[in-house]
Amino acid sequence: MKESVGIGLLGMGVVGGGVASVLGDKSALLAKLAGAPLKLQGALVRDLSRQRAASLPDGALTTHADDILDNPDVDIVVEVIGGEQPALDYILKSISLGKHVVTANKEVMAKHGAKILSHAQKHGVQVLFEASVAGGTPIIAPLLRDLVANEVVSINGIINGTTNYILTKMAQEGQDFGVALAAAQELGYAESDPTNDVEGIDAAYKLAILSTLAFRARVSDADVYSEGITHLTAQDFRYASELGYAIKLLAIASKTDGAVHVRVHPAMVRSDVMLAKVDGVLNAIEVQTDLAGRVLFHGRGAGDMPTTSAVLADVMDIARNIVSGIEAPPLPSLTADVHISPMDALETKYYMRMNVVERPGVFAQILKVLGDLDISIASAIQKETDDDARRAEIVLMTHRAKEASVQAALQAIDKLQVVNEIGSLIRVEEWD
Amino acid sequence: MKESVGIGLLGMGVVGGGVASVLGDKSALLAKLAGAPLKLQGALVRDLSRQRAASLPDGALTTHADDILDNPDVDIVVEVIGGEQPALDYILKSISLGKHVVTANKEVMAKHGAKILSHAQKHGVQVLFEASVAGGTPIIAPLLRDLVANEVVSINGIINGTTNYILTKMAQEGQDFGVALAAAQELGYAESDPTNDVEGIDAAYKLAILSTLAFRARVSDADVYSEGITHLTAQDFRYASELGYAIKLLAIASKTDGAVHVRVHPAMVRSDVMLAKVDGVLNAIEVQTDLAGRVLFHGRGAGDMPTTSAVLADVMDIARNIVSGIEAPPLPSLTADVHISPMDALETKYYMRMNVVERPGVFAQILKVLGDLDISIASAIQKETDDDARRAEIVLMTHRAKEASVQAALQAIDKLQVVNEIGSLIRVEEWD
Ligand SMILES: NC(=O)c1ccc[n+]([C@@H]2O[C@H](COP(=O)([O-])OP(=O)(O)OC[C@H]3O[C@@H](n4cnc5c(N)ncnc54)[C@H](OP(=O)(O)O)[C@@H]3O)[C@@H](O)[C@H]2O)c1
Ligand SMILES: NC(=O)c1ccc[n+]([C@@H]2O[C@H](COP(=O)([O-])OP(=O)(O)OC[C@H]3O[C@@H](n4cnc5c(N)ncnc54)[C@H](OP(=O)(O)O)[C@@H]3O)[C@@H](O)[C@H]2O)c1
Repeated sequence: MKESVGIGLLGMGVVGGGVASVLGDKSALLAKLAGAPLKLQGALVRDLSRQRAASLPDGALTTHADDILDNPDVDIVVEVIGGEQPALDYILKSISLGKHVVTANKEVMAKHGAKILSHAQKHGVQVLFEASVAGGTPIIAPLLRDLVANEVVSINGIINGTTNYILTKMAQEGQDFGVALAAAQELGYAESDPTNDVEGIDAAYKLAILSTLAFRARVSDADVYSEGITHLTAQDFRYASELGYAIKLLAIASKTDGAVHVRVHPAMVRSDVMLAKVDGVLNAIEVQTDLAGRVLFHGRGAGDMPTTSAVLADVMDIARNIVSGIEAPPLPSLTADVHISPMDALETKYYMRMNVVERPGVFAQILKVLGDLDISIASAIQKETDDDARRAEIVLMTHRAKEASVQAALQAIDKLQVVNEIGSLIRVEEWD
Repeated sequence: MKESVGIGLLGMGVVGGGVASVLGDKSALLAKLAGAPLKLQGALVRDLSRQRAASLPDGALTTHADDILDNPDVDIVVEVIGGEQPALDYILKSISLGKHVVTANKEVMAKHGAKILSHAQKHGVQVLFEASVAGGTPIIAPLLRDLVANEVVSINGIINGTTNYILTKMAQEGQDFGVALAAAQELGYAESDPTNDVEGIDAAYKLAILSTLAFRARVSDADVYSEGITHLTAQDFRYASELGYAIKLLAIASKTDGAVHVRVHPAMVRSDVMLAKVDGVLNAIEVQTDLAGRVLFHGRGAGDMPTTSAVLADVMDIARNIVSGIEAPPLPSLTADVHISPMDALETKYYMRMNVVERPGVFAQILKVLGDLDISIASAIQKETDDDARRAEIVLMTHRAKEASVQAALQAIDKLQVVNEIGSLIRVEEWD
């Protein structure tokens, strides 16, 4: 029976500041629920002079990681620095020193999760990372605990709030990407360098983590195909809406016959499905399984307090084990035999928008290219004909087709004299 | 280290049959994840001759409870008989004998949860009941684990699939209650005696369980105000939709200043909120907390396999502890100091529909009654005037008002000579 549980914070920014203040504000409640008080032993920062969200006792802030890692009173290290290094080194060192780790760091878990977990297993400590995906929305613990008896068939998630905010603006207000991005930056929803979010990199990190747990196999961020939202235009949203679809940046993982598809890209989804209705910075993840069917988790994906909620859930989980003298429970086993399916092997429906010369026979030429590659058309609209310039816009929806064929078709179509430009290619995801 | 974990089933109906067949079909996976095989040691039924979903070895089916409860090879008793008795006795006896219990029984947990949990605490065993609320949709473990650092402000749930199916039919097809109920019965979504579902009793059981955990205080089914859906008419759905609302049977728990409101009744919710979009037999629960904000859990609330998913999550949780020799973790503490607020103290908005004599001054008479009781009107429509019979229908939406005043007003209005009938009173729930 431990008298108290010591917490060491690495980082005291948005999330670290939230964790420190809630540890203070709710100390009585947390102590009661954990069985012993949680004591914040210190926090690592870069800049001692910065203003902090929570005030710590004198000397508790440090710029030396070892003040936290080597402190024998620290039982749980909470890593909320972010990024690959020095976060990874600090996590591994904490584990080596027998400390449990809670992290909100999707990048480090996506890139080095397997290594971190096996290191933790060796040292008999827990490593938890609920906050690394979907912030305040529970998803990792439910996957590991509540859906444990299930085989996951697929995951469809909106797991990047920045891009969902931008896409919502584009859909609702007809804005172009640049305008919506600027609005998001203004509100603090997008960083000044938005690359990680708008190019789908952040979502790919999170999808790697979710697929690893869902399929019980190592999936790293490098396995995830990812494509951002920067090429989407206001037109695409107009056509999508006319056709009865919403456009979302989806993170999709699916498993068929031992092959795992993992991809992040803009996708059209029917306007009446739940994921189409997830607006603004909110996140949602739909997990489809063999037993439970479709289960959807919806909530805030970021923000100081929602993320603190997830970090403290992990901290409390470990703290209760420490207080009751329970050894670290076994970590998720990642031994399933799967291989990552290449993007070319994908089969789905596609939306294509292209700008062509308005002249008889053009449409037939395009259909011929598609037909030769076994791509059949479900619907076609010719739009916004500009009579003077003799330009027309063609919007096509295909039946299910092979990604490789579609890419080959687009290359061939792009070479046709009568085609001015290929505007967009958006995958269409349909579930029953 | 146990070599295997013994499971005893009480009941082999819809859920028990599902549990038995998945224990068989997935034995290798479950053994790997639990660290030891799960062995089904026997199942209690009433009728040995009935056809079963899963075939058990000879002698495994019994009509004598003690064959399961006294079997030293049974470590976990899974109670899926349902109802108050004999389920309660079997659960208490299992605990006395040092066996862990998993139950899907909302009635027994709503009525006797506190007693069962304290008995379990005394005997150092776990009692888990994830399947008792929202079937395959995780909610209990997320409340206890993922939201542990949060104060729950409110819960708004659609937690009865039968009534949600009926209301969806009424809304989408303009059916009256009786017709929609018959359709639900035809499809097996409603029982031949539908009282428990349509009168809100089943939802009240589940809400009692959720509020107990959310507010860390004893809330029993008797504390929950409940009102069913039998008096709703096709008209109400038409007016609701014109006004931009959906009608749902909501289970609502909220806490203000140490007072807990718990109620189940038809409610109007704005058509654009997530809960308004939960259709058919699906369930959804939105938990609002201080840190995480609003978190929504959405999925199947019943069915053999979804419910089995939840039961087996609990079974695996306990099995892993048994295998690793971990003592039962502390049960949720129910010591918060709250009192149950009476329904009369509720303050919300109201929709009222009444049939009146068409004559000048009638509307003024009604407004006077309302005004005298401090109820102000946000909007009013006079509808479907039947000129020959000189009858008119008045539909009112109030601003926030006190339940006690509204009830008093309706009594007074009902006594007015010019009022033929009070059609409906539906509470309107609005969240920001
Ligand atoms: N913000 C969210 O809403 C959110 C949501 C989910 C997950 N996360 C994850 O949580 C983690 C933290 O995010 P955040 O938003 O809190 O970041 P942040 O506001 O930038 O804070 C980072 C903190 O780490 C400290 N730090 C950075 N580099 C350091 C170094 N080399 N040595 C010592 N200290 C260092 C900083 O110190 P100074 O204060 O002295 O600069 C700062 O206190 C990231 O992994 C992020 O992906 C964040
Ligand atoms: N069905 C769902 O989708 C669902 C979802 C969530 C929760 N639940 C809960 O799960 C529990 C079980 O529901 P269910 O749908 O599986 O019920 P069910 O199909 O009616 O099955 C009940 C089983 O219990 C046995 N049984 C009943 N009374 C008994 C007695 N006195 N002694 C011995 N055995 C007895 C029955 O035996 P015989 O087979 O011999 O008649 C039957 O096998 C209930 O608490 C229910 O609320 C059900």
